[in-house]
Amino acid sequence: METATHPEAYQPTRRTTPTRYRERAHYDREIVHRILDEALICHLGYVSDGGPVVLPTTHARRGETLYLHGSTGSGPMLAAKAAPSGLPVCVTATLIDGLVLARSALHHSLVYRSVVVVGDARVVEDPAEKLRALHSLLDHIAAGRAADCRTPNARELAATAVLALDLIEVSAKVRAGGPVDEPEDCALPHWAGVVPLSLTAATPVPADDLAATTPVPPYLTRYTR
Amino acid sequence: METATHPEAYQPTRRTTPTRYRERAHYDREIVHRILDEALICHLGYVSDGGPVVLPTTHARRGETLYLHGSTGSGPMLAAKAAPSGLPVCVTATLIDGLVLARSALHHSLVYRSVVVVGDARVVEDPAEKLRALHSLLDHIAAGRAADCRTPNARELAATAVLALDLIEVSAKVRAGGPVDEPEDCALPHWAGVVPLSLTAATPVPADDLAATTPVPPYLTRYTR
Repeated sequence: METATHPEAYQPTRRTTPTRYRERAHYDREIVHRILDEALICHLGYVSDGGPVVLPTTHARRGETLYLHGSTGSGPMLAAKAAPSGLPVCVTATLIDGLVLARSALHHSLVYRSVVVVGDARVVEDPAEKLRALHSLLDHIAAGRAADCRTPNARELAATAVLALDLIEVSAKVRAGGPVDEPEDCALPHWAGVVPLSLTAATPVPADDLAATTPVPPYLTRYTR
Repeated sequence: METATHPEAYQPTRRTTPTRYRERAHYDREIVHRILDEALICHLGYVSDGGPVVLPTTHARRGETLYLHGSTGSGPMLAAKAAPSGLPVCVTATLIDGLVLARSALHHSLVYRSVVVVGDARVVEDPAEKLRALHSLLDHIAAGRAADCRTPNARELAATAVLALDLIEVSAKVRAGGPVDEPEDCALPHWAGVVPLSLTAATPVPADDLAATTPVPPYLTRYTR
């Protein structure tokens, strides 16, 4: 998909048009890609026995395709295998950038950026695409890691399923900035503003059985997303 | 619900028994409560027109009930209103505590704690319960905030819907500790271990229109979750 040319924005659909706060919705590919790439995990939703299931999982974007993986015996992978024309999914990735504290209760909010992708996920059958996707899933966690670990063997590949979801029906939602209070509330004595939040990495902790001489690789020493 | 007595653990059901890594599943109320209380947001899943929808939102636990809120015009609130016997939902809250880097690609993982709640969410009609829930949603974001802001007025309450989901079908999943590599991989030269991650707060940023003399309240100066 990476070499195809795409218009700059995704086409909004009924499913990707929010009923509220439409001004927060974005369809620019660059905004969407940046959120998907920064978010360490997403939440995968699908329907099982008529009811919703939502599970956290890691993801990786390659061009205009989002990849997810799991054990071949896991719920979503079994469901996808049983849906030859694709498993209807909703994948949502959310970044929390801060608390928004307003003078009034119902103007409290969060600073956030989220992406919702809906579509039919397919099981990746092509071995080369599958291996590429698994490499991307590793590099999504820490850029450079795919080349710095033992690659999967045939047994491991057979026990792992990869789902592909093309980025077609996609929207981002972005809420930035401080609180917006009613004018008559602004004189109230309550503190108002933003508490910035971020996912922060601490010093890497080596495994108990790691040789003491093994250096921490550069892509982990100053880990940020 | 808070005064009722409950057994120490939730009863596992088919929907709350994972197909994989069953040893990571937990049903203790205390473990579940702690994860729900620490997680700033959750992802709400429901079925709309036969397809899955997953949306990020804040939540608050009061005893054995989880509350969510939103505009009366939002998708999930409209769906809940149209489902008088309750809207089937799956609410998932996930805390990421670190990256797990193994020598082999497919033993990479995350240190995480998650809770999945399934059940039928009801629209809260009782005004007292609704107001209590909204207070809890504020205190969930920052403990003490509900008492330190303007309480909702009648117009705002009419525009806001609250969903209640009783904690009955609930499971937690916890993955702790470092990488677990195959014995034959342990001599490989790749670094292995954990990169700890946490949601960290920076110095609160006052709103542009806040009087400079307004002090930052203690519950925000050393904000942690």
